[in-house]
Amino acid sequence: MPNPTAAMLVIGDEILSGRTRDANMHYLAQELTKVGINLCEVRIVSDTRDAIVSALDAFRSSYGTVITSGGIGPTHDDITADCVAAAFGVGIDVREDARALLQAYYDSREIEFNDARKRMARIPDGATLIENPVSIAPGFSIENVHVMAGVPSVFQAMVASVLPTLTGGAPVLSQTLRVERGEGDIAGPLAIIAEEFPDISIGSYPFQHNGAFGSNVVVRGSDGAQVDAVMKRLSDVFRA
Amino acid sequence: MPNPTAAMLVIGDEILSGRTRDANMHYLAQELTKVGINLCEVRIVSDTRDAIVSALDAFRSSYGTVITSGGIGPTHDDITADCVAAAFGVGIDVREDARALLQAYYDSREIEFNDARKRMARIPDGATLIENPVSIAPGFSIENVHVMAGVPSVFQAMVASVLPTLTGGAPVLSQTLRVERGEGDIAGPLAIIAEEFPDISIGSYPFQHNGAFGSNVVVRGSDGAQVDAVMKRLSDVFRA
Repeated sequence: MPNPTAAMLVIGDEILSGRTRDANMHYLAQELTKVGINLCEVRIVSDTRDAIVSALDAFRSSYGTVITSGGIGPTHDDITADCVAAAFGVGIDVREDARALLQAYYDSREIEFNDARKRMARIPDGATLIENPVSIAPGFSIENVHVMAGVPSVFQAMVASVLPTLTGGAPVLSQTLRVERGEGDIAGPLAIIAEEFPDISIGSYPFQHNGAFGSNVVVRGSDGAQVDAVMKRLSDVFRA
Repeated sequence: MPNPTAAMLVIGDEILSGRTRDANMHYLAQELTKVGINLCEVRIVSDTRDAIVSALDAFRSSYGTVITSGGIGPTHDDITADCVAAAFGVGIDVREDARALLQAYYDSREIEFNDARKRMARIPDGATLIENPVSIAPGFSIENVHVMAGVPSVFQAMVASVLPTLTGGAPVLSQTLRVERGEGDIAGPLAIIAEEFPDISIGSYPFQHNGAFGSNVVVRGSDGAQVDAVMKRLSDVFRA
């Protein structure tokens, strides 16, 4: 059975303008791989309603799980929750459980729970909250879409609470063979071995070291015996 | 007149599996911003034909410029050139000028110019070559799509040779005000100022420093006088 699929939607003008380098995608990719969920596609879009809604529409029908990051803070450019409600055709309003969480948090710190902060308690109808142990304002899940904050520490905490609720797949095993030859030298035999093992993914990544070309050959698959068999074939061919 | 638009397609299983952290997107975002081209969307897809072709189809009709990275090496998983030819409905074959470049390079290093390396001379009909001063194997441009290597040093060299051929826009000016208050405190006034200046983008990015919350307010736009006016308003409101 093929592994479950996922897609990620990163929302934020600051990533597209080059002001900020996204860190969440790489983190999520590693976490999903660990539990055997196949991250198939990532899109990075701006803080505009059309862009967010159309990416959500494309993703939620195509992939098992959709994770978004960004756009759920208190400022005018935080429009992700409204876009998710629009994509699902449901209402959105301040919700009592989310409001109460935030109220208690701000009261304890003697910070005013003003209208901007109340926006963070606006949750689409039918969603369940995702806990935020870092700064309280929750994310939420609605059907297969999980909406998380863009701030990396908060994003990571939210991933940690959602991941155990997802159905994982067979863990993907990965082994790497470092070959001191350029990709052009190894490409022929590599293609033959890749055809012999259609369930195993064989990738080749060039590097340069002290002016010499080499390749890291990465073998990935769910069947440990097959991964081992490919590694043995590669060693025989390239280390002879 | 709005600035020209661009989109980027990153191709590679190694990014989606979390093995490699992409560096090209952030680099390109910064370079495009410098010349006033608006990077509107990025997609990261796997090394599979359907995923690459459908992203190309979506992008090339929606954005002024499309830049791809990855999948143009000599190995079996390098299928970008074939996908581009398929998306444009043109043929693809070894082309004499590309072949001659590679032949001379490998001859000078006494490296065999084998079939795998010849694959890197396969160029879609009607494309023009993009120079690769690092490792010679060229990228190519066809209509508004520019196909570049994934290795960062090569990608950057290819961006440097293509960028001067693109029509830029008004440079986007950016100023940042650091405010020692949480986003929830500044969101209300920020929204009012954002409405007053519809041509200026005002973003807010939270940070934590020594346990206190603060916000970097980033003001971006092509009209320097308006950017200055917004910065003055922000200072008056938040530094009073």
